[in-house]
Amino acid sequence: MKVAAIGLGSMGRAARALLKAGHAVLRGGPEPRRPRRLRGCGRHRRAPRGRYPRALEAVLVLTVNAAQARAALFGPEGCALRLAPGAVLLLVCATMAPADARALAADAAEQGFLYLDAPVSGGSKAAHAGTMTVMASGPEAVFTAAAPVLGAVAAQVWRLGDESGMGATMKVTHQLLAGVHIAVAAEAMALAIKAGLDPEQVYGVVTGAAGSNWMFENRMAHVLAGDETPHSAVNIFVKDLGLVEAMARVRPPCRWPRRPCNCSWPAAQGHGGKDDAFVIRAYQAMTGIKLPGEA
Amino acid sequence: MKVAAIGLGSMGRAARALLKAGHAVLRGGPEPRRPRRLRGCGRHRRAPRGRYPRALEAVLVLTVNAAQARAALFGPEGCALRLAPGAVLLLVCATMAPADARALAADAAEQGFLYLDAPVSGGSKAAHAGTMTVMASGPEAVFTAAAPVLGAVAAQVWRLGDESGMGATMKVTHQLLAGVHIAVAAEAMALAIKAGLDPEQVYGVVTGAAGSNWMFENRMAHVLAGDETPHSAVNIFVKDLGLVEAMARVRPPCRWPRRPCNCSWPAAQGHGGKDDAFVIRAYQAMTGIKLPGEA
Repeated sequence: MKVAAIGLGSMGRAARALLKAGHAVLRGGPEPRRPRRLRGCGRHRRAPRGRYPRALEAVLVLTVNAAQARAALFGPEGCALRLAPGAVLLLVCATMAPADARALAADAAEQGFLYLDAPVSGGSKAAHAGTMTVMASGPEAVFTAAAPVLGAVAAQVWRLGDESGMGATMKVTHQLLAGVHIAVAAEAMALAIKAGLDPEQVYGVVTGAAGSNWMFENRMAHVLAGDETPHSAVNIFVKDLGLVEAMARVRPPCRWPRRPCNCSWPAAQGHGGKDDAFVIRAYQAMTGIKLPGEA
Repeated sequence: MKVAAIGLGSMGRAARALLKAGHAVLRGGPEPRRPRRLRGCGRHRRAPRGRYPRALEAVLVLTVNAAQARAALFGPEGCALRLAPGAVLLLVCATMAPADARALAADAAEQGFLYLDAPVSGGSKAAHAGTMTVMASGPEAVFTAAAPVLGAVAAQVWRLGDESGMGATMKVTHQLLAGVHIAVAAEAMALAIKAGLDPEQVYGVVTGAAGSNWMFENRMAHVLAGDETPHSAVNIFVKDLGLVEAMARVRPPCRWPRRPCNCSWPAAQGHGGKDDAFVIRAYQAMTGIKLPGEA
């Protein structure tokens, strides 16, 4: 297929995986008038200054947020203005609020495009290798149309229903975990250093024990090496945790607290003798959710 | 060796690994006058009512906290009263404050025992299989004496220095990660359910993506199964996070905040464009630590 891969950040490296799978690939930024230098992307072409060609069959949007995705698709220099409606598929992988995903999908549908709410996980290495995890929602027909692109960039594709926004919801949930992991990795390493432990040993112990997480393993290696190169920048961490907070607030009749829970709440609520998985009872008390198996 | 394994909780299952390695094993609780029923521990003997035999060569303490460890060793019915000083080795694996580990080690030394500050990680399965991770500190001679016991119960033994308390410090640091993972796993699952996602799909997506952690994988399986059996109880989670908080407070001149950090601090401090590993700069600003490579 003729595919435009939009996004010049580390996730934009998925352009290489598309190319490797035999697609004709153009790579550009969300603002095509100001393309940035391309790095490590093989033989595929850069989008021509200010314009994407009319012949595109799919657009893979790997921008940092919804605003960039909107500009890349529907802005004054966006793809959508130049593309024939109907067959063209828009796969939007940026992490965004579910409401933004629904709004983009609605605009795409109005203009006659196929739209897949398709956030990704896996970091720049998985993007480069074409082994991302895609958490997608949209109509069956869109998944069918998207199969050649998804097959090139993803090791696993989750179908989270017909409704746009569920992909984004899953991704924001995932970013709660990822963001907290980044913060607690830094906090634990700082606490350990303060307490006199050797950072290399801390790294070895944690990464070999049950308290590890992928972010600790990946990010604390950067700290040990003193390498501040932004593989994923602090600003993205801040943005993503902002999306989490916003999503937690818009769920009526959610009593999600503005201030963090105290870890002793579930014990105070009488769950102290239960398995610690049932810390979730404290969240249940706040939100009224049904857990699996509950009527 | 003739070893007493003290502790009747899930980590006490390490008694079986000792037995399998050829040691003569007695298993008992921290209060030997009131031994609880033993489950799944093979052919080794239960400690006789009220007494441990004088012929013990090592005592492996797998109690839930420092108070139980102290009672088991130095209480009115504790082992130490009946054991000949000198050759006997006390391996204390309970999670406790570094100050408690130092105090126990000092008391043991005063009475002529060898003492290893030897917290463990890996959960009940690793205890049962003899594949725990041990994060230990103590003199070289103690490590040598402890080798037959450590070899039976551990897949990996970390040597964190000569000084008792560093094992405990490492373990408390680890429990910061473990405890936050337990909490964020529950929070993310609750948020996802509230937002309309299918819990089984959430489990599948997260465990296959970069935002997973071992606690999410292990504990959320209990939630999906509705299984509240306390493999590790909420009360232990609360106790361990209390140790973390206490340790963070006793590090002078620590400016560790009483209230949690805002995720935007590192960006506000000018680190927004750096790799998100350098969220650690916010903790550095609070604590004055040196990161690896800094003079």
